[in-house]
Amino acid sequence: MPAAIAPIAVDAMGGDHAPGAIVHGAINAARKGLPVVLVGPEARVREELARHHAGKALPIEIVNATEVVEMHDHPGQAMRRKKDNSIRVCFDLVKRGRAAGMVSAGNSGAVMAGAIFVLGRPEGVDRPAIISALPALKGAPILLDMGAVVDCKPIHLVQFALMGDLFSRRVSGCARPKVAILSNGEEESKGTDLTREAAAALRGAALHFVGYCEGRDLLTGDFDVIVTDGFTGNVALKTMEGTAKVVGEYLKRALRSTTVSAIGGLLSKAALEGMKKRIDWREVGGAPLVGVNGVGFICHGRSDALAIENAIRRAGEAARTHFTDELARVVAPSAALVAAAAHARDAKPPHPPRQQAPTEA
Amino acid sequence: MPAAIAPIAVDAMGGDHAPGAIVHGAINAARKGLPVVLVGPEARVREELARHHAGKALPIEIVNATEVVEMHDHPGQAMRRKKDNSIRVCFDLVKRGRAAGMVSAGNSGAVMAGAIFVLGRPEGVDRPAIISALPALKGAPILLDMGAVVDCKPIHLVQFALMGDLFSRRVSGCARPKVAILSNGEEESKGTDLTREAAAALRGAALHFVGYCEGRDLLTGDFDVIVTDGFTGNVALKTMEGTAKVVGEYLKRALRSTTVSAIGGLLSKAALEGMKKRIDWREVGGAPLVGVNGVGFICHGRSDALAIENAIRRAGEAARTHFTDELARVVAPSAALVAAAAHARDAKPPHPPRQQAPTEA
Repeated sequence: MPAAIAPIAVDAMGGDHAPGAIVHGAINAARKGLPVVLVGPEARVREELARHHAGKALPIEIVNATEVVEMHDHPGQAMRRKKDNSIRVCFDLVKRGRAAGMVSAGNSGAVMAGAIFVLGRPEGVDRPAIISALPALKGAPILLDMGAVVDCKPIHLVQFALMGDLFSRRVSGCARPKVAILSNGEEESKGTDLTREAAAALRGAALHFVGYCEGRDLLTGDFDVIVTDGFTGNVALKTMEGTAKVVGEYLKRALRSTTVSAIGGLLSKAALEGMKKRIDWREVGGAPLVGVNGVGFICHGRSDALAIENAIRRAGEAARTHFTDELARVVAPSAALVAAAAHARDAKPPHPPRQQAPTEA
Repeated sequence: MPAAIAPIAVDAMGGDHAPGAIVHGAINAARKGLPVVLVGPEARVREELARHHAGKALPIEIVNATEVVEMHDHPGQAMRRKKDNSIRVCFDLVKRGRAAGMVSAGNSGAVMAGAIFVLGRPEGVDRPAIISALPALKGAPILLDMGAVVDCKPIHLVQFALMGDLFSRRVSGCARPKVAILSNGEEESKGTDLTREAAAALRGAALHFVGYCEGRDLLTGDFDVIVTDGFTGNVALKTMEGTAKVVGEYLKRALRSTTVSAIGGLLSKAALEGMKKRIDWREVGGAPLVGVNGVGFICHGRSDALAIENAIRRAGEAARTHFTDELARVVAPSAALVAAAAHARDAKPPHPPRQQAPTEA
């Protein structure tokens, strides 16, 4: 085992099932040789470790943090007022190089605020984003932003594309990612002012920008980096989640109604489990932040031990690529790209007013 | 059979499989006693009727239209320049009372443009919308707008809510529709300036407004009228479509991999067919326009005979409710609602700048 793997800091107090499920997930990761630092009130963390019979030989440290950010806390206020909260202490460890990255299933706004507050943004990064791994038929496509930046400007989408491209190459291992903007149709004339201005800028960027993609392309794997504002990204991801659930429900009903219902029931259970595992967010292992000086993974509030273990593994993998060191370099051209596109647009004769043209759904 | 059912005008030339599939669908509807007027080049339409052995006893008329709007035509220009196009002639029949409503699987932008151009908007309606019926677990929920109005203002969302509520009560038969705005979280503080201003206005409206819903609520049936801008609506609907397809694909793979694969294959086929039928857009029968003086249904470009038959039936049902007569009355309060909400907002002391608070996905 290599001696020098820096540990991942784990917010023991974040999530609906904290600290039990979190500590359990950290123990499972440690048992597989992944070092962790559990951050939270020391006595409570020790109690959980004892409950799971975690031996002293495991690569688990504890760092005390006396305060907890609650789900209803205002993210920025919590960071300023609760100075010893477990999220902030995790980021302090990352900042000081004591941890390679951090994982939290707590208040996601507070995780983002803590990342910005403690780690800071690389030069030129306007707004950090949250990346969602898409459970597609092939490849390892990502979508960003999944909810951090709701009111986006073109420069934000352009930076998401550049940062997403970097992440896809360095962390997902995609050699030449196909980058697309999520829109309401494939034609250049579709979209909003936001998507059209961002697309115009990205056509000049040094990446493989392929234009617009649509909601139906999210899970095909035909696009590697899908860029959108945090509002649309959130709606799309939750629509995906809800649709998968309802389709599963319809399927259960359909299988139950067959005459060979006993066999049907068994088979459907196996099939649904297999499918669930494929599209299960717990398998995905959290959503990485991109656009801050360090590695942070936001996990679902309902995270169980499996979700936490996977997030720890993926945070370690991401940290080892040192992709965050390259963020400033990749976003550097973004302002010039947006300015050039705006200049080209203003130099053209004005278009006639666009006719209302609904998109076929 | 009642003597005085006004027929539905059917654009024989619209869609990927026109005129064959369209005429076939119209014949099937006519065979079930639903009168239709087929609109298109008379010789071609007669040829198709003969090919399907449509007897003279069927309630089918033909109205000649010499021009066709192509998919690449600019909607507004096509309406102005191709004066005898089949979409426009359909709307002329509706306008003159010769048809109760119209159905087209053609260029959807041109259908919307034709509706506005020929039928016009009821007083006070700013932008007409397109309604999508959602294949939910229960109820008959609708989403609007599904793609007509991409750059929305708060007044548009407010009018969509008021018109959607009317449609749900009068056409879907929902006694007291629960109306919600699609957003990136349930809390009032979520959303964009657009959704927050529309929500503030709707809190004062005479309908059962319940605030925000999320992407995962689209198919539960817990909300009856879901309001959103045409960009987000289009992305959500196509995400739904794509997810259902991919989940079906995963399921097929999972069933195929079971040891009892022969039985698995058979069962899965039956189950998938049952499920497909439930969420199949062809069963839904097109997407009604709302906000014009008459009934128009936009069908999927890939519509087959079944889709057209269902759209004809649903257009007839919608027309018989005369819901369009009430549109002006229901949207009348919209401007005052938006103004009152803006006034209340400006009267409050300004909020501190909002901290970036990503939404848990």
